Amino acid sequence: MKQSFINDLQKIVGEQFTLSDKESLAVYGYDSTPELESLPGAVVLPGSTEEVSRVVALCHDAGVSVTPRGSGTNLSGGSLSAGGVVLQTSRLNRVVEIDEENLTATVETGVITSALHRDVEGRGLFYPPDPGSMNISTMGGNVAENSGGLRGLKYGVTSDYVMGLTTILPDGVLLKTGGKAVKNVAGYNLNDLLVSSEGTLGVFTEVMVRLIPKPPAKKTMLVHFPELEQAALTVSRIIAARIIPATLEFLDRVTIRCVEDYARVGLPLDVEAVLLIEVDGHPAVVEEDAAAIRAICEKHRCSFFQTAATAEEALKLATARRVALSALARVKPTTILEDATVPRSCIAPMVKLIQETARKYDLTIGTFGHAGDGNLHPTCLTDERDKDEIARAHQAFAEIFDAAIAMGGTITGEHGVGLAKKKYLPKLVGEAGVRVMRNIKESFDPKGILNPGKVF
Amino acid sequence: MKQSFINDLQKIVGEQFTLSDKESLAVYGYDSTPELESLPGAVVLPGSTEEVSRVVALCHDAGVSVTPRGSGTNLSGGSLSAGGVVLQTSRLNRVVEIDEENLTATVETGVITSALHRDVEGRGLFYPPDPGSMNISTMGGNVAENSGGLRGLKYGVTSDYVMGLTTILPDGVLLKTGGKAVKNVAGYNLNDLLVSSEGTLGVFTEVMVRLIPKPPAKKTMLVHFPELEQAALTVSRIIAARIIPATLEFLDRVTIRCVEDYARVGLPLDVEAVLLIEVDGHPAVVEEDAAAIRAICEKHRCSFFQTAATAEEALKLATARRVALSALARVKPTTILEDATVPRSCIAPMVKLIQETARKYDLTIGTFGHAGDGNLHPTCLTDERDKDEIARAHQAFAEIFDAAIAMGGTITGEHGVGLAKKKYLPKLVGEAGVRVMRNIKESFDPKGILNPGKVF
Repeated sequence: MKQSFINDLQKIVGEQFTLSDKESLAVYGYDSTPELESLPGAVVLPGSTEEVSRVVALCHDAGVSVTPRGSGTNLSGGSLSAGGVVLQTSRLNRVVEIDEENLTATVETGVITSALHRDVEGRGLFYPPDPGSMNISTMGGNVAENSGGLRGLKYGVTSDYVMGLTTILPDGVLLKTGGKAVKNVAGYNLNDLLVSSEGTLGVFTEVMVRLIPKPPAKKTMLVHFPELEQAALTVSRIIAARIIPATLEFLDRVTIRCVEDYARVGLPLDVEAVLLIEVDGHPAVVEEDAAAIRAICEKHRCSFFQTAATAEEALKLATARRVALSALARVKPTTILEDATVPRSCIAPMVKLIQETARKYDLTIGTFGHAGDGNLHPTCLTDERDKDEIARAHQAFAEIFDAAIAMGGTITGEHGVGLAKKKYLPKLVGEAGVRVMRNIKESFDPKGILNPGKVF
Repeated sequence: MKQSFINDLQKIVGEQFTLSDKESLAVYGYDSTPELESLPGAVVLPGSTEEVSRVVALCHDAGVSVTPRGSGTNLSGGSLSAGGVVLQTSRLNRVVEIDEENLTATVETGVITSALHRDVEGRGLFYPPDPGSMNISTMGGNVAENSGGLRGLKYGVTSDYVMGLTTILPDGVLLKTGGKAVKNVAGYNLNDLLVSSEGTLGVFTEVMVRLIPKPPAKKTMLVHFPELEQAALTVSRIIAARIIPATLEFLDRVTIRCVEDYARVGLPLDVEAVLLIEVDGHPAVVEEDAAAIRAICEKHRCSFFQTAATAEEALKLATARRVALSALARVKPTTILEDATVPRSCIAPMVKLIQETARKYDLTIGTFGHAGDGNLHPTCLTDERDKDEIARAHQAFAEIFDAAIAMGGTITGEHGVGLAKKKYLPKLVGEAGVRVMRNIKESFDPKGILNPGKVF
C-alpha cells in the first residue's frame, strides 16, 4: 500500500491507530477460520462514526477495499482482507443509551456482546442473543453475521432484536435506519437487509437493540441417552408437546469424550448423546415444563436426568456445552467447525448421516449444537498439514451440505458465507437467488469497495 | 388496453378469470384508501404460481405494469393500478401444509388471515398477527404490507413470522427464499426485504410462516380513565414494571362516543380514555400480571376496572376496540385513518398533540390504536366533497407526521407508504435512505413493471 495513502489514513484516525508494519498486518492476516490467511495493506482503528465515514470515503475515492472487523471471531473468513484496509471497530465501544421506558439499548458496534448482557441484566432487562464467542465478539460482528446462540430456540437471533442501525455506506455516506418505534413499515426493511450482510453493504457504527424483561426463573437439566435416535426423538417430542425451552443443546459421543477429557465435568463415556436443556420464565411455568420434559426424556430411555439445584450447579452443567468447541479444538491442530442446519424434525437423520460420512472418509468428527433449532456443528478434528485428510474433510462436508439442502435445511445457520462457503451458496439459493443478491450488492456498492470477494 | 394483449392474458388464466369490462374495472378502481381512485386496464385472477409467473413475464415483455392485490383492504392506495394489470390473488387459496413437528404453516397467498388462525388454533397452535382486517385480508397482503394487529406488543408483526416465500420476480422468474430451518444466514436476508415491499419487488404466491404454541390462558380487562395523561402513563408504567401484555389498546373520548353510539357496549361517555388490556400465557402468569396491572391502573386513578369472567365477556370487551373503525366510519362519508407511530414513551404527548391539532384545524379526529406499540390511529371524520375541510385535514396530518418524526417515530407503523404517504417518506428516511431504496427497486425491476409509482 502506498505510503501517501497510509498518510491520508493517519490524518483521519491518527498515527497510533493506523497500523501498517509487517507484524501488525500479520496479526490481522487471519480470523477464527481454519486454512485461510490473507494479508491486509493497512489496519485502521477509527474512534467515531465520523472517522469511519471519512475512512470509507477516502478508500472509495482511491478504489481501495475496506473490510470491517470486530474481534475476528468470524468462522467463514469474512473479516479477511487481501491487500485492502481492515477497519477494526474496537474503539467504537461506548454504550450510548439504555432506555428503560422503551426497552432499547443503543451501543457503538465495538461493544462486546457479554458486556451488554451484564449491563442490561443489572437493570432487570435481557438481551437474548448469546453466541458462543459472546465474551470476545462485538455487537457489530453479531449484526453483520446475524449471530445466534444457545437461547435461539425460544428467543431467536440477532435480527430479531435489531431496531435501528447507523451505517456508513460504501461511498462514505451515513444512513440511519429504524428507530425506537417498535412498528415501522415506511419503505423497504433496510435494517433486516443490512443485518447478516457480512460487511458487504455497509459498515455499522451504532446499533439499537430491543430488550425484553429478564425471565425471573430458570432451570437447567442435563440428560444422558444411551441411544442417539432416542435423544433426537426427545428433541422433537418436547417441541411437539408445545414446550419451547430457551436452550435445547446436543452433544454426541465424540464431543462428550473430548469435553470430559478436557474439563472433567463428570460426563459418562458410555452414552451416545447428552442433551442440555434450559427452561426459563415464570417459576410456575418453569416447574411444569421441567416436569413434562423429564417425563419425555424418561419415555425415551434416558439413562440419567440431572437438574441443577443451584445457579452454580446450572453453570457447571452448562459448562459441558460451553466448552465443547475448546475441548474439541485441543485434540488436533486444525478444527473445522461447520454449521449445517436442518428443519428440527431432521435432527436424527442428520446426526446419523454426519457419523456415517465421518466413517466413510475416515475422519474424526464431533457433533454438537443447537438441536432445538436444527442447527448442528459437525466439527472435524484434523491437521491442515495433512493434505490428504483435509481433502477428505472437504469432500465429507460437501456431502453433509448437500444432505442438509436436500432435507430443506441450509449451508449456514449462524456463521455466514464469507469466503469459506461461497461455492455452496448457488446450490442453496439457486441462480435467481444469486442474481438478486448480486444485484443488491451492486446497487449498494457499484465500485465493489466493501469487503469484496465475500458471500458471492 | 389492447384486445390482443387481453387475449394473451386469457390464454394464460382463462377467459372467466380475465376481467376487462367497464363494471369490473370500476370495482378494482379503488381500495380501502379514501380519496384515491384509479382504473386498471385489466384484472386477472390466476389459479397457480405458474400462471402468476406467466402473467408477469407477459406483462414484463410487453411493458405493461402489474399490481398485485389481495382483498383490497389496503389503506395507502398500494393496490391501485393506473391502466395496468391488477393481479388478484383470491384463487391462490390453498393451505399447502401445516407441519406440526417443525411448527410451520405453508399457504398460498390468497388465504384469508383469520382462516389460517382457525386452522392452526384447532391444533393447539397459534399464528399471532391479527390485523384489524383479518376476516377479509389475505396472507399475501399481510406479507406485502408487514401487517401488525392487536397482539403486536407481545408477539410482533408479520415479518416476525415469515420463514419462507415463493415470489415471482418482475421478469416472471420464480424465487424461493428461506425455508423450514429456523436459522439461516446464507446470503442476504431476502425474506425480510420482500416482506413490506408493498408489491414493488415481487408477487408472492406462497408463504411459510412460523407457528407457536397457543397460550393456554388469557385475561381481558377494560379500564376507564377520567384523565388522558393518566391512561398514557399507565401504558408506560405497565411496560416499566416488566409486564408485556399481548394487547394494550387505547381509545380516546371521540372514539368512545362513536363506539357507544354504534355498538352499545356500555362505555361511559364522561371519560377521557379507555384501555383494553389482554394478558395471555400460563394461568399463573396471567393471574399475577392481571393483578399487577390492576394495581397500576388504580394508582393512576382509573374510574372503573372490569375483568372478563368468561370468553364471551372477553369478546364483548374486545368489541369496543374491534369496532372502533367501523363506529367512526359511519359518522361521516369519508374516514381518513392514519397510523402515526412513536416510541411508546411518547404516547401521552402524541395523543395531546393530535387533539390540539384537531382543535386548531376545526376537525373531528378520533384516536385509537396500539398504545403499547406507540402505534396510534388518529382518524379524521370528514367528507371528501368538502374541499376546504379536506385541505385542513391534510394540513393537520402533515403536522402530526412531522411531530411523530421529531419524537423518533415513523409515518406509518403498519399501513405502508403506497401512494398516500410518498411525500412524507424522504422526511423520515433522508436522502440516503430514499437513494438506497430506489437503487434496490431498480436492481429488482429495471423496467419498472411492478406496482409502479408506489412507495417512492
